[in-house]
Amino acid sequence: MYRTHTCGELRLADAGKEVVLSGWVQRVRDKGTLLWIDIRDRYGLTQLFLQEGVSSAEVMEKARTLGREFVIQAKGTVIERESKNPNIPTGEIEIQLNELNILNASKTPPFTIEDKSDGGDDLRMKYRYLDLRRNPLKNNLILRHNVAIETRSYLSEQGFIEVETPCLIKSTPEGARDFVVPSRMNPGEFYALPQSPQQFKQLLMVAGFDKYFQIVRCFRDEDLRADRQPEFTQIDCEMSFVEQEDVLNTFEGLAKHLFKKVKGLEFDKFPRMTWHDAMKYYGSDKPDIRFDMKFVELTDLAQGKGFPVFDDSEIVVAINAKGCASYTRKQIDALTDFVKRPQVGAKGLVYVKYNEDGSIKSSIDKFYSPEDLKTWLDRCGAVAGDMLLILSGKTMETREQMNCLRLEMGNQLGLRNPDDYKPLWVIDFPLLEWDEETQRYYAKHHPFTAPKPEDEHLLDEEPSRWAEIRANAYDIVLNGVEIGGGSVRIFNRDLQNKMFRTLGFTDESAQAQFGFLMNAFEYGAPPHAGLAFGFDRLCSLFGGQESIRDFIAFPKNNMGRDVMTESPSTIADAQLEELQIKLDLK
Amino acid sequence: MYRTHTCGELRLADAGKEVVLSGWVQRVRDKGTLLWIDIRDRYGLTQLFLQEGVSSAEVMEKARTLGREFVIQAKGTVIERESKNPNIPTGEIEIQLNELNILNASKTPPFTIEDKSDGGDDLRMKYRYLDLRRNPLKNNLILRHNVAIETRSYLSEQGFIEVETPCLIKSTPEGARDFVVPSRMNPGEFYALPQSPQQFKQLLMVAGFDKYFQIVRCFRDEDLRADRQPEFTQIDCEMSFVEQEDVLNTFEGLAKHLFKKVKGLEFDKFPRMTWHDAMKYYGSDKPDIRFDMKFVELTDLAQGKGFPVFDDSEIVVAINAKGCASYTRKQIDALTDFVKRPQVGAKGLVYVKYNEDGSIKSSIDKFYSPEDLKTWLDRCGAVAGDMLLILSGKTMETREQMNCLRLEMGNQLGLRNPDDYKPLWVIDFPLLEWDEETQRYYAKHHPFTAPKPEDEHLLDEEPSRWAEIRANAYDIVLNGVEIGGGSVRIFNRDLQNKMFRTLGFTDESAQAQFGFLMNAFEYGAPPHAGLAFGFDRLCSLFGGQESIRDFIAFPKNNMGRDVMTESPSTIADAQLEELQIKLDLK
Repeated sequence: MYRTHTCGELRLADAGKEVVLSGWVQRVRDKGTLLWIDIRDRYGLTQLFLQEGVSSAEVMEKARTLGREFVIQAKGTVIERESKNPNIPTGEIEIQLNELNILNASKTPPFTIEDKSDGGDDLRMKYRYLDLRRNPLKNNLILRHNVAIETRSYLSEQGFIEVETPCLIKSTPEGARDFVVPSRMNPGEFYALPQSPQQFKQLLMVAGFDKYFQIVRCFRDEDLRADRQPEFTQIDCEMSFVEQEDVLNTFEGLAKHLFKKVKGLEFDKFPRMTWHDAMKYYGSDKPDIRFDMKFVELTDLAQGKGFPVFDDSEIVVAINAKGCASYTRKQIDALTDFVKRPQVGAKGLVYVKYNEDGSIKSSIDKFYSPEDLKTWLDRCGAVAGDMLLILSGKTMETREQMNCLRLEMGNQLGLRNPDDYKPLWVIDFPLLEWDEETQRYYAKHHPFTAPKPEDEHLLDEEPSRWAEIRANAYDIVLNGVEIGGGSVRIFNRDLQNKMFRTLGFTDESAQAQFGFLMNAFEYGAPPHAGLAFGFDRLCSLFGGQESIRDFIAFPKNNMGRDVMTESPSTIADAQLEELQIKLDLK
Repeated sequence: MYRTHTCGELRLADAGKEVVLSGWVQRVRDKGTLLWIDIRDRYGLTQLFLQEGVSSAEVMEKARTLGREFVIQAKGTVIERESKNPNIPTGEIEIQLNELNILNASKTPPFTIEDKSDGGDDLRMKYRYLDLRRNPLKNNLILRHNVAIETRSYLSEQGFIEVETPCLIKSTPEGARDFVVPSRMNPGEFYALPQSPQQFKQLLMVAGFDKYFQIVRCFRDEDLRADRQPEFTQIDCEMSFVEQEDVLNTFEGLAKHLFKKVKGLEFDKFPRMTWHDAMKYYGSDKPDIRFDMKFVELTDLAQGKGFPVFDDSEIVVAINAKGCASYTRKQIDALTDFVKRPQVGAKGLVYVKYNEDGSIKSSIDKFYSPEDLKTWLDRCGAVAGDMLLILSGKTMETREQMNCLRLEMGNQLGLRNPDDYKPLWVIDFPLLEWDEETQRYYAKHHPFTAPKPEDEHLLDEEPSRWAEIRANAYDIVLNGVEIGGGSVRIFNRDLQNKMFRTLGFTDESAQAQFGFLMNAFEYGAPPHAGLAFGFDRLCSLFGGQESIRDFIAFPKNNMGRDVMTESPSTIADAQLEELQIKLDLK
């Protein structure tokens, strides 16, 4: 038996007990006649104590050979500590050591196994198994486990059944790029790894499963941005005989359950915002509503006064940076640089300061009188001490730029506390999105998303009006991050055919790609709707972080590489031959 | 709102309520002035009732247009049925129909959606979404969901953390064939899909996770036997600071929990059998102990009496078929044909009947006196009315043949009831297995399995003695089917190196394949051990069936094809080009 207790559970009440602990050496303090060893496992840290004359010479000697991260087994007696450590749960006791076994030695680790490590990112990724020994990462994965457990518990309670859908599926050219898997038994043919179980979950609705969910691995062969992974996990859900309202309520229920069980937080009904309002007031379909600072349009007030930049703009839009009238020239220049960065793309930034003394100062005083500017300040609800920040240009572009600026101001003013959780539903997304490059409409969500019944007739109008069609599609947003989204699906074959034609599919191409689903729809498809949460992201937000990487046990880097296992790697010629493929390197 | 109730929940106590149901038309019975519709959903079946004069003409007319599997919404009043159906929970009521909406029509399904369908296997696979509407399949997947829920509940309760390990991993040539995934971002390189998370779970032990589990998809590119799938699911587990006994107790606990929660069955301590005894008494490392019929060796009694077949055999082994003395010539001939089938491979079958009248009759009366044969009967514990069945030849082959015969006799005598559950631990597997073809030893379990400490010294002896080395490896067997297996792992680098050398690896080849794990072991690997259950198989046994296919929502056929989605399939040239591979078809 390797242990009687873990390193996290002994308390003063255990004093006098003979115990056996096993774990890793966190540190050794050798004071000559006295020696302490901190032993660590997943559950905590316990202090071992040796004293010359009390402990045997052999044990003392062995203790002096220990290095960091050695794996040891310690036998001894629980005693009360002389100098207690109130910072750890075992801080009132220590173990008077009688016997010490070295179970395994360790080379000196390349970085310290402490909450704040001295290891750089690359080194920590290479030795991920050592990085995972550190509390922050360990706790992230325990949090992830708890979120999964609570998700399953809630959904099962609600009558959902978890059904595993295949990983080796049919490749469909629509959407993002598939990872593919050559089939040895079917030479020249390939499986794809699923980008989501979308079609299978819809088939399960046709099959009458009524309420389906799955915590499921998905794959996307994309050029990876900073915080994307080629494989990621979704909480994937679908329900039959429901309307949008049922879906929102069910998954708001899930989110509330998770907040309560994992974070101990209770919420009222989540607010809802139309996509149109989200764009108008926040310039984003995932507004961070932890802070206000809504967009205010000044176009009518700002135009016609001879300032050509505003006069030539589709829109002039302001945010009110509360209490920022005291910003220095340098601070404002920095903001101007910020909005002019290529990632934001604005041409410049206009400010209007409403000074504490009631005076008004702006970068466009030449064109506007204080009275003019006062009307702007009033519309923005500014009071003395505030500052307006103003951008102008094409409507969508300007809104997106202002979104960046608003978030930056939120950061600067400390309004984006990761422990302050503000969920939001964004609803009524557009059904279709026009793509300038290919000169066609694309499904904003996916081709199975239903238009709002009251907008459906617009599909029979001129294509120019299609952009107005709203979908029964919704996203759930937390602190400015989309954590989930879904839609009511089309379950009527005629409407689905019309939708495919709208998206530029011929009947043949639609049949080739989605034939099995469309065929299934001919055998009594029920009305259905669904939603998927990004599980990695959800966990990272619950953990108070925006990056998902440290909430995944073994993530890949931006080149899709696992630097620990050195994967991907070349494979043997014999393997290629069996698969009847060969390399064709450029 | 599509429904107020499901089709499975209304009872007599609900009489008088106005309700709305949605579901599929199971059948319509039209008696002219009276008309009944059975409406079905996942939860059950409810009868709708229409009556000329009471129901509106419009509703009557619409009801007459319904076909099987139409999706309808029915509004009406719950009333007590005149002729009750005690076979279904809703059998005391029906719905007096006021309003009927056809939500979706259906083509006539290609087979009946009944518990016993008229559809052949191929048709049912092609229309899997219709097959899944049938109760037997639906219930299989609900059972699977429940087994998963209870597995997670038990293991979490025991302090296990579910950690998701990657699906895109490094290919290792050892073991079964990997599915590989070309990496677009790393041209010429490939990921592999995991055959199991073996190395990652060992890394998690090095990382100090202490108790890990995962219900995880695994992949194996094998030529598929009848009941194998290219992707399958495991309950994968690993623990630190444990010995074999801890692992057996923990997972026996899991199995008992599942039996209790899913099947309502309670068990005493599971019996244990060494691999050596399993082979000696059952000729199999997965004995079906629902029935006795153990092997009895008669070699010493049978040899030296002039019967050359036995005299030239390494072993003569019998089973006692209780009560089978009445078997006819024809029945015995059929058994002889059975053992001579190539899948079994015996040369012939000897019987000894102990007739009810006390006389003895055998196929070898020429060589053995009744007194000789009586000693055989006595050793086998046979009484009047029993019959011995005897095979002989090389030891291992004969035992394997006798295993087939024993299972066949179990079937014929009705001793293998799928609802009778008899779990068993098989322990002390050999560490190594000699392969005649390649003239080397292979790891019986895998190269990380630890030898029993008391046998470890044999690794330093002549290779001829290595076959004697027992491993700390164990299988859990249920009703003659292996449902899980695992081992205590090697955590000491020196022993691991020795093991690799024993398996014919050079230091370089071991480093190339397992380097990251071996490196990790240098930084304080704890003693650890684990086990994995075959989840699909476990579910099928709980469902009382031996085939896993109907416990997987969307399985593949023996060619690895999904005939519903027609996958795998060819992919576009552009996709191949991006991946920098090309086809090389023979």
